[in-house]
Amino acid sequence: MSGKDLRSIGERKAIEMVSRILSKGTVPVGIGDDCAALEIGDDYLLITTDMMTQRTHASRASAKQMGWYLVAVNLSDIGAKGGQPLGLVTALGLPKGTHVSFLQELSRGMNACAKEFGTTIIGGDTKESKEVSLAATAFGTVPKENFMPRSGAKVGDVVAVTGTLGLAAAGMEALRLKLRRPKALKALLEPWPRVREGISLGETQAVSSSIDISDGLSTSLHHLAKASRVGFKVDFDNLPITDEVQKFGLDENDAGLHFGGDYELLITFQHKNLDLVVKAVGSHGTELTVIGEVTRKGISIKKDGKVSRLGNHGWEHFKPPKKVKRKKVRKRKRSPSRSSR
Amino acid sequence: MSGKDLRSIGERKAIEMVSRILSKGTVPVGIGDDCAALEIGDDYLLITTDMMTQRTHASRASAKQMGWYLVAVNLSDIGAKGGQPLGLVTALGLPKGTHVSFLQELSRGMNACAKEFGTTIIGGDTKESKEVSLAATAFGTVPKENFMPRSGAKVGDVVAVTGTLGLAAAGMEALRLKLRRPKALKALLEPWPRVREGISLGETQAVSSSIDISDGLSTSLHHLAKASRVGFKVDFDNLPITDEVQKFGLDENDAGLHFGGDYELLITFQHKNLDLVVKAVGSHGTELTVIGEVTRKGISIKKDGKVSRLGNHGWEHFKPPKKVKRKKVRKRKRSPSRSSR
Repeated sequence: MSGKDLRSIGERKAIEMVSRILSKGTVPVGIGDDCAALEIGDDYLLITTDMMTQRTHASRASAKQMGWYLVAVNLSDIGAKGGQPLGLVTALGLPKGTHVSFLQELSRGMNACAKEFGTTIIGGDTKESKEVSLAATAFGTVPKENFMPRSGAKVGDVVAVTGTLGLAAAGMEALRLKLRRPKALKALLEPWPRVREGISLGETQAVSSSIDISDGLSTSLHHLAKASRVGFKVDFDNLPITDEVQKFGLDENDAGLHFGGDYELLITFQHKNLDLVVKAVGSHGTELTVIGEVTRKGISIKKDGKVSRLGNHGWEHFKPPKKVKRKKVRKRKRSPSRSSR
Repeated sequence: MSGKDLRSIGERKAIEMVSRILSKGTVPVGIGDDCAALEIGDDYLLITTDMMTQRTHASRASAKQMGWYLVAVNLSDIGAKGGQPLGLVTALGLPKGTHVSFLQELSRGMNACAKEFGTTIIGGDTKESKEVSLAATAFGTVPKENFMPRSGAKVGDVVAVTGTLGLAAAGMEALRLKLRRPKALKALLEPWPRVREGISLGETQAVSSSIDISDGLSTSLHHLAKASRVGFKVDFDNLPITDEVQKFGLDENDAGLHFGGDYELLITFQHKNLDLVVKAVGSHGTELTVIGEVTRKGISIKKDGKVSRLGNHGWEHFKPPKKVKRKKVRKRKRSPSRSSR
């Protein structure tokens, strides 16, 4: 494999390869979950790091939006584990010709998001680079019993998702078509991490597994399935796909299941705890939708009465970039009667 | 200032600007020290982040050396505060054409350094980028009373440095001249962080301030002076400049005081604790050299009986890159008597 390049193996295989090389410490949860977790007394210290580069980020985002995004995607991972953010550090790679105002706006965006979720940027590094390359590390704490791993889903649990699906895909289409769609654009460029919902969900101690679906729902289901050694049965008709997807004429399957960029939480829990869990999420004005259940193995989806295997088609780095698919419109020959009208 | 670019203001002003924008949390030590510190019971949780890019890193380093370096520079900051490393997370930005073997070797280097200092890489992120852009975040813990800040130097303290000065500068010259100088090259490309020395120094509880001198001795003295609101008087003749500097014909002033890249610790303490502190460092086979003392203000250096102001000429990002200065050799006209011999 060492003769190949990253394009040919993709991000997931690359991460697996790295994790085989790295020594395993005494970390309860390490590479492979949204956050690493270290024991500190009765709590876990959660740590997560996320990077964004010009190459992979929407080119039309403003500096302030990029700052917000950098902090938001990291806080999302802390929230997905039930964690209370403690702080962030940032590592900013910037070309030397970067305008000072870019760095100011970037900092304002980072600060605004941290502040919104009750935390601060407490340190950082800046380096000269060819392109804008931004990394942040967020850390937080969670009482051990509130921690929501990827690995706890049990056969028979229900699987549910917060908020809606497909809004980020709609935002991408709005960017492409240069349309003013503030809600969709905001979802894409300034995502709102489910930190508050995550903390409340952790406090229920009823959630058996959790992940954020930024890489797409299908990929996230595959991650939970792998970590928990279970399967899933999802009902397409129950997916809370946003109306914006239809309005844009996007393919519902692609925007709702695969495209990614929606910073929502995907969780599992026993059906008897449904009210408790819905209430925890609802206390922040957020909806929770049951989309299926945990099975022994395999990930399937039911649509129009037909059950099929749900592939892992979410976002993956190094592989060729994806576009949001548009709905296939069957082209009909105009009937003579119509054309003659 | 917002109309300017980063080249014109440099890294230090850029960091000051960012830190004015960011909200201050309840962090005891934040931006401006080597690590941020958060209170966790009787300990501080230390967090630091460092980034390296192709643009700023020695282009002839192997992937394994880059991996070692990424971890070493972060552990150095933990060590400088007296901290025991807990773990690291890495954010790797790589071009999609990167060979898989590069990522493997990079991981092996990261792992080797972490392992050497008793810690592990517990998580990470990889993203596609135009150039190799690597960030790592290290965290560690230190009992509060062992913590060595930048801000505690007191007038009358002595100032001392571990190991030698100028070895990294010699390494850079060896690279430039394509010479085999394993010791100097290793110092430059695979620096050995003073983690063990830092922990032992913290345990003495005698160290009033500490910083790693990777940005150069002069810059580090300026950092300590600013944070502690003091000055320094340094004796050039006492500087432990490595013999390699002379062997290469490098300018001692530049290689020893300004060039940087030496991952040594610069510390201050009361003279009465000299034996204790020397013993703490010596227990790891490392030398400690007193190079001067803490004064009320101003940073001066005595050389050949003459005292002059020591400028802040260490490494700074975004500003034009520096070369190691060579010794000025006074060109003499050959005297007729000599040439006739």
